[in-house]
Amino acid sequence: MLTGQEYKDSLKDGRRVYFQGRLVEDLDATPGLAEPLNAVAEGYDKYHSSAPDAVNPVVSGPRSVQELRDRIPELMELDLALNVTYQSLMTLVVAAARMQDSGDGRVPVYIPRINAYVERARRDDIRIVECITDAKGNRSLSPGKQDDPDSYVRVVERRDDGVVIRGAKLHISAAALAHDMMVMPTKTMKPGEEDYAIACAVPVNAPGVHITNTTYHPLHGDPRDYPVSSHHSIPDSMCIFDDVFVPNERVFLDGETEHAAVFAHSLGLWERLGGVSFMVQQADELVGLASLIAEANGIARVQHVREKIDEMMIHATLLRAALEAAIANARSTPEGYFYPDDMYTNVAKYQGAVQFTTMVRHLHDIAGGAVVTAPSMADFDNPTLRPFLDKYMGTGGGISGEYRSKLFHAIRDTTADAYGGWHLVTNIQSGGGLYAQRLVTRRNYDLDRARALALKAAGLSS
Amino acid sequence: MLTGQEYKDSLKDGRRVYFQGRLVEDLDATPGLAEPLNAVAEGYDKYHSSAPDAVNPVVSGPRSVQELRDRIPELMELDLALNVTYQSLMTLVVAAARMQDSGDGRVPVYIPRINAYVERARRDDIRIVECITDAKGNRSLSPGKQDDPDSYVRVVERRDDGVVIRGAKLHISAAALAHDMMVMPTKTMKPGEEDYAIACAVPVNAPGVHITNTTYHPLHGDPRDYPVSSHHSIPDSMCIFDDVFVPNERVFLDGETEHAAVFAHSLGLWERLGGVSFMVQQADELVGLASLIAEANGIARVQHVREKIDEMMIHATLLRAALEAAIANARSTPEGYFYPDDMYTNVAKYQGAVQFTTMVRHLHDIAGGAVVTAPSMADFDNPTLRPFLDKYMGTGGGISGEYRSKLFHAIRDTTADAYGGWHLVTNIQSGGGLYAQRLVTRRNYDLDRARALALKAAGLSS
Amino acid sequence: MLTGQEYKDSLKDGRRVYFQGRLVEDLDATPGLAEPLNAVAEGYDKYHSSAPDAVNPVVSGPRSVQELRDRIPELMELDLALNVTYQSLMTLVVAAARMQDSGDGRVPVYIPRINAYVERARRDDIRIVECITDAKGNRSLSPGKQDDPDSYVRVVERRDDGVVIRGAKLHISAAALAHDMMVMPTKTMKPGEEDYAIACAVPVNAPGVHITNTTYHPLHGDPRDYPVSSHHSIPDSMCIFDDVFVPNERVFLDGETEHAAVFAHSLGLWERLGGVSFMVQQADELVGLASLIAEANGIARVQHVREKIDEMMIHATLLRAALEAAIANARSTPEGYFYPDDMYTNVAKYQGAVQFTTMVRHLHDIAGGAVVTAPSMADFDNPTLRPFLDKYMGTGGGISGEYRSKLFHAIRDTTADAYGGWHLVTNIQSGGGLYAQRLVTRRNYDLDRARALALKAAGLSS
Amino acid sequence: MLTGQEYKDSLKDGRRVYFQGRLVEDLDATPGLAEPLNAVAEGYDKYHSSAPDAVNPVVSGPRSVQELRDRIPELMELDLALNVTYQSLMTLVVAAARMQDSGDGRVPVYIPRINAYVERARRDDIRIVECITDAKGNRSLSPGKQDDPDSYVRVVERRDDGVVIRGAKLHISAAALAHDMMVMPTKTMKPGEEDYAIACAVPVNAPGVHITNTTYHPLHGDPRDYPVSSHHSIPDSMCIFDDVFVPNERVFLDGETEHAAVFAHSLGLWERLGGVSFMVQQADELVGLASLIAEANGIARVQHVREKIDEMMIHATLLRAALEAAIANARSTPEGYFYPDDMYTNVAKYQGAVQFTTMVRHLHDIAGGAVVTAPSMADFDNPTLRPFLDKYMGTGGGISGEYRSKLFHAIRDTTADAYGGWHLVTNIQSGGGLYAQRLVTRRNYDLDRARALALKAAGLSS
Repeated sequence: MLTGQEYKDSLKDGRRVYFQGRLVEDLDATPGLAEPLNAVAEGYDKYHSSAPDAVNPVVSGPRSVQELRDRIPELMELDLALNVTYQSLMTLVVAAARMQDSGDGRVPVYIPRINAYVERARRDDIRIVECITDAKGNRSLSPGKQDDPDSYVRVVERRDDGVVIRGAKLHISAAALAHDMMVMPTKTMKPGEEDYAIACAVPVNAPGVHITNTTYHPLHGDPRDYPVSSHHSIPDSMCIFDDVFVPNERVFLDGETEHAAVFAHSLGLWERLGGVSFMVQQADELVGLASLIAEANGIARVQHVREKIDEMMIHATLLRAALEAAIANARSTPEGYFYPDDMYTNVAKYQGAVQFTTMVRHLHDIAGGAVVTAPSMADFDNPTLRPFLDKYMGTGGGISGEYRSKLFHAIRDTTADAYGGWHLVTNIQSGGGLYAQRLVTRRNYDLDRARALALKAAGLSS
Repeated sequence: MLTGQEYKDSLKDGRRVYFQGRLVEDLDATPGLAEPLNAVAEGYDKYHSSAPDAVNPVVSGPRSVQELRDRIPELMELDLALNVTYQSLMTLVVAAARMQDSGDGRVPVYIPRINAYVERARRDDIRIVECITDAKGNRSLSPGKQDDPDSYVRVVERRDDGVVIRGAKLHISAAALAHDMMVMPTKTMKPGEEDYAIACAVPVNAPGVHITNTTYHPLHGDPRDYPVSSHHSIPDSMCIFDDVFVPNERVFLDGETEHAAVFAHSLGLWERLGGVSFMVQQADELVGLASLIAEANGIARVQHVREKIDEMMIHATLLRAALEAAIANARSTPEGYFYPDDMYTNVAKYQGAVQFTTMVRHLHDIAGGAVVTAPSMADFDNPTLRPFLDKYMGTGGGISGEYRSKLFHAIRDTTADAYGGWHLVTNIQSGGGLYAQRLVTRRNYDLDRARALALKAAGLSS
Repeated sequence: MLTGQEYKDSLKDGRRVYFQGRLVEDLDATPGLAEPLNAVAEGYDKYHSSAPDAVNPVVSGPRSVQELRDRIPELMELDLALNVTYQSLMTLVVAAARMQDSGDGRVPVYIPRINAYVERARRDDIRIVECITDAKGNRSLSPGKQDDPDSYVRVVERRDDGVVIRGAKLHISAAALAHDMMVMPTKTMKPGEEDYAIACAVPVNAPGVHITNTTYHPLHGDPRDYPVSSHHSIPDSMCIFDDVFVPNERVFLDGETEHAAVFAHSLGLWERLGGVSFMVQQADELVGLASLIAEANGIARVQHVREKIDEMMIHATLLRAALEAAIANARSTPEGYFYPDDMYTNVAKYQGAVQFTTMVRHLHDIAGGAVVTAPSMADFDNPTLRPFLDKYMGTGGGISGEYRSKLFHAIRDTTADAYGGWHLVTNIQSGGGLYAQRLVTRRNYDLDRARALALKAAGLSS
Repeated sequence: MLTGQEYKDSLKDGRRVYFQGRLVEDLDATPGLAEPLNAVAEGYDKYHSSAPDAVNPVVSGPRSVQELRDRIPELMELDLALNVTYQSLMTLVVAAARMQDSGDGRVPVYIPRINAYVERARRDDIRIVECITDAKGNRSLSPGKQDDPDSYVRVVERRDDGVVIRGAKLHISAAALAHDMMVMPTKTMKPGEEDYAIACAVPVNAPGVHITNTTYHPLHGDPRDYPVSSHHSIPDSMCIFDDVFVPNERVFLDGETEHAAVFAHSLGLWERLGGVSFMVQQADELVGLASLIAEANGIARVQHVREKIDEMMIHATLLRAALEAAIANARSTPEGYFYPDDMYTNVAKYQGAVQFTTMVRHLHDIAGGAVVTAPSMADFDNPTLRPFLDKYMGTGGGISGEYRSKLFHAIRDTTADAYGGWHLVTNIQSGGGLYAQRLVTRRNYDLDRARALALKAAGLSS
């Protein structure tokens, strides 16, 4: 296993990572990338063992409902890179098993490759990110109908020893900080779209790979004004594959359109628990911020404030109920891994995304305009200003100006600034957008039962 | 145990039941009351056993989470009178145990009375209704501050052999069809309000009792136009206590204000499962109706229709998630009875009530104006009209005019007529109204944890 | 002009009107139809003049913005039959002018017919209803693609002296009480659908016409329990045309598909003002009911109650704002008639329909369960019950039980019973449903301006 | 009148302006303050006239409904400092007239002072900001009951030649860029709160004044990634009054609690038009962004996308309807100035604030995750990256990657980053918060009429 420092050294591998238009020479010296780099490094140190055969214990799937439930607090603490690595490896394990099951004589060539890759990844203690969303071009057209055939990642050349791929994957979190990119089709492919049915593991430093970066990490001002995002940012990347060669041992699907969706579906099993758990935690955090700032403003007992907080608590509890239902109704893969029920996790994501802005509005309504006008913590450092700020931002009864300002900064940072805006967008878009959640519900809901109830009500049951 | 006919005979006991301004001579001959009477009688026949010591098996509490879960489909089939009888007896059992626990030397006199009453009620196979909501007068004033001291039921005289009570209880379902009324305080009472801390079992035919009735049962037109409410109505009553004497053996609380709320709280444990289960079922039924009528209208594949049905499914699934979470987190009384978790059932009721009208709007939007203008089933009986109605209410592809009209009647009956209106109101009001559900959430939500999360986000954790 | 009695006599004309499966012999003796018949008769008496050339002054269009505005209170008082007659005649006048404008040599034959018909209708003081909505069959198919070609009203035979039509029109209010039915296409027709491009005036008593009826009029119980619907009901009809001959002088369009939509569009101009005015008034009435019942319940000063009423007032004011904007931006036809702006009236209808159920929920939340369980007014007639009802339904401070019960009945009648259900459905469906309102907005909104603003924001303006 | 450069020079007056904890030496050299400084300077140049008696023509009130309506596009173009200066002077004019009317012999001393000040301000062409919101301490306590008596700005000393004030005003836009601060009470004051009934004009550079600043202006990265906020930012300030002496000629109220609210109320008249006009424009801009990005994503014809844009258009039209209604029902001050109707502007602000987050959610749902992950415009400058970005961010059909990325940056900047967060908060808080808008509606809505309608419905009208 690697130490944090070894990990950081391992990324000095010739990768072409860009930030704000410039090729990054040294991640560690680049504000906005250095902080999440260090967070991943801390994750390495946290789990490090110098035993020769040690592997990270997190990187294995739960074997019972109880293990699934116990995983939640652990997930909440993991750095994103480790979390996604875990998801990636579990995805491969399950995808291999599923392809095996539907075996038609040709597929199994991928199985030993996958098993070998998983074992090597565990042993080498690397970090892997998921690359799913393609550039997509015109959303109303399928991959083969685009003006530009590269709108979806595809194989442009097949050699004896591997394939050459071209295209781009978008919205890839932490790509600049990983060793490998797990490339997989974004959706089902149809006959004729064989070149788009490509799944493979690509080293971030492979020739032809370019990684752009955007981030909500605060790049100016005082980190204390960004109490969350200055510590917990993750860069998002476009991963460009400019005719990248991938050797056969890293190719896990090539051309079998009938298996194109198996990777994304398998990933779905593993990304849900963390996603929904985070939404529940986020809802609880909003409740907590509302409760603290109401108290600090002296309005905790005002009835309309209490009702807004009630609604926020009811919202958070509904999300938690869906998480609880998903675990109570957990399912297991044929391989014996437990994952939360599909339908309940999807309604949680849908409800969480749809109601998030209303919860934020309640919080802002309670908090007041100082969410965006509270003095900077640097202002508090100024000896002339500090007494005034303590006096006028304080509200008596032991609520100091500094304490209250810190609450305002936390609210602004998480709901009304770059990081908050990132949440507004990603709460809706993660996991495929609201439309994807609708689809999953449509597929899983017991409509026959509902129709039988309705026919009975109409006196139309036989 | 009684047969249905014995039950019906047993109600010819001199009770003063009124309907539409007139004293009811014969329940069985009174449209609007006869139908629910027969439904209760059927419930008697269904569980009847002629064994001498037989008691109704339903009237006992679940002893495990699994028993609790298994109870749901059974509850969905019970007639209301039997369901409430079960709740009443379980309420007494739990209330007795709770008063015992807090025993201060005086209370225990009620315990043997309660136990004897419960045993007798089981043996005699009677039906009992809950009488909780008082007339209340001005809602902003407490019982002792009202213009009229009788706004809450109270003891007006204490004799050696019993008490005399005065007041009225409102919104009492099925009172005219029961043997006993379980009278209990509507809420906590304060010192000085001893006369309002009265719980007792009053025979419906006790001198001084008057029972008015309202109903959504269709009293005109063709029952086929009311496919649900013509079969499943329950009258609601105001139960008036005009100086009614209650003998000591039927008095379960008299003056101990500290115990005033124990009965209503105990009842809460038992009424929830059925209430939330019904809401889930109602939501599923709305989905079913929407799906069937969309299909019958030929618009099942229209995208905005599908999205509305998606939303209805998501709503139904969220409610079911809360029910699942409530059962997965079931709690048990000290006596070993299992009941669903308070907070999850309350958020389900809140969400179900708040969103119900939106779900109904979606259904009406999909169904169209024929919800209220579809021809009567009697019109279909008219030989001149029938061919026209089949022709013009049908939509081709095997959807006959009669089938489609029956769907419209089911939709109108359950959502856009007297019974639908009753749901609009009672979905909000049952269990104490939206405000009560907010309060329960406020009391049960783990606010400390939420605040800790928020303090951590603000960098204010110690 | 006719007196009310002359009007009633004039309907004894052999018409085939059905109610609850039976042919109606005498409208005046048929509960559910007699009451609206009398309301129309009162409308006749109200405007009656015995002057030989007198015509009803209402039946003419506004000639200025001010006249348009002044029309609102008048419309609110008109009986529906007179209101629709006015709309019908104005529709014909405008449709004639529009067909004239687009004259292609053939159409003008209809112009003198229309003018003669309008003059005759005014002189004979008849009542006319609009027949627009067809049976429609499968909503996803156009008229010519239906399993049954009669799913839309069509010409099945053309003779020298007229045409024979077949089909049915649905949701026709007050058809049984009118003299003529103004039949018009429900929408644009395409080439090949000439037989469906038929507009004509059909006497209700023409051979082959059958009129079914449904109503929310209370047919049982005490009219006092239905304070609104027992006075203001209107029956809805399916108007069946079983090969009905229409003489040429009553045919206003036959086959010119390019003009098929002109009648429905012209009608749109005239029905809007009344429709939106009613919605505004309905919203105000809900506010009033909420305010009165909050006061009667003693909770007018409770903060969450005040906020709910605030929201209801804001809703009512937004609707009124849209009505004000529609009048302030009124447009005039080439003929000089003023009608409210399309887009503003449509957003009002959309908002009114979408928010109606939420406003009703607020009202029910404030009012409480007695909306559906308040004693019948007949119960108040019972001398035994009356003192109890006055005592226990009263809330002190001068709020009598009878007064408060009357409020509950008004709330139940308008929002939680048959009439309320009719509103739930028709608020959404009238004027073509939510989808139609969306379409109108889409067509009228200044999207170019909005896009220019956005391009400017993006720095993409040239 | 001043030129832009003269204005900038005039601010070098010893003012104590702080930014990020440091005293600002030179506004023009301080990123985040320099840009809005230049915007104000441009406003000077735009209206500059070298005629000796010239005054800015904008600084006068509309004298008719038409002038009021014509003012809207002008307001949309004004820089904020000029807009607020206009509001301030009109506020003084109207407040003077109102105090005059209620004259009790003492007040009029302020009238000539105000008139002189207004004339001088116009002549000197200064910029004035409004200082209303106090620090407020505990919101549940009135000014006199606070732990700290300075929680509301107050007079701490009265001298012959003026008063000394202490306290702080919050959320003051553009204070650092103005010459004078118009200090006024935040609300009605009661007897005993005379020291808080203080209105006066304080020079920004007066001894004892300290001005902190916060801003959503982008201080890092490429201005092209912030196409709106890099051009249109305004700093918000806390204005601290550390025992500031105000000479008598600048004191416009001192101690007359009965007049304390007259300034804020007068201001309300003038700030509304701009506030609501901006909200309407903002809603239109969101529609435009949604339309453009839907087109750029290739989903403009997808039905659920069209419906979301329909809803956004309906929302924007409802807001515009309220603005239209406010102007159509404009009122005039006794002095003959026209201002938009109170109630309609308030419902517009309420609706705009409450629905804003839903509109933003629709926009994000349509736009997709690239709102937060689109490459920086600097990435487009990189010659290696540019071809890839054009290729993969483009969607065919003439939609280039750069064009589409610019749309994403505009969406992110206005709705999902610092500036968007500022809108989330200030849309709710400006003009006193949602609660204030509710109050205004409550006061202005014709509740008597609504109650009369309800009484009539209940059959309770006399």
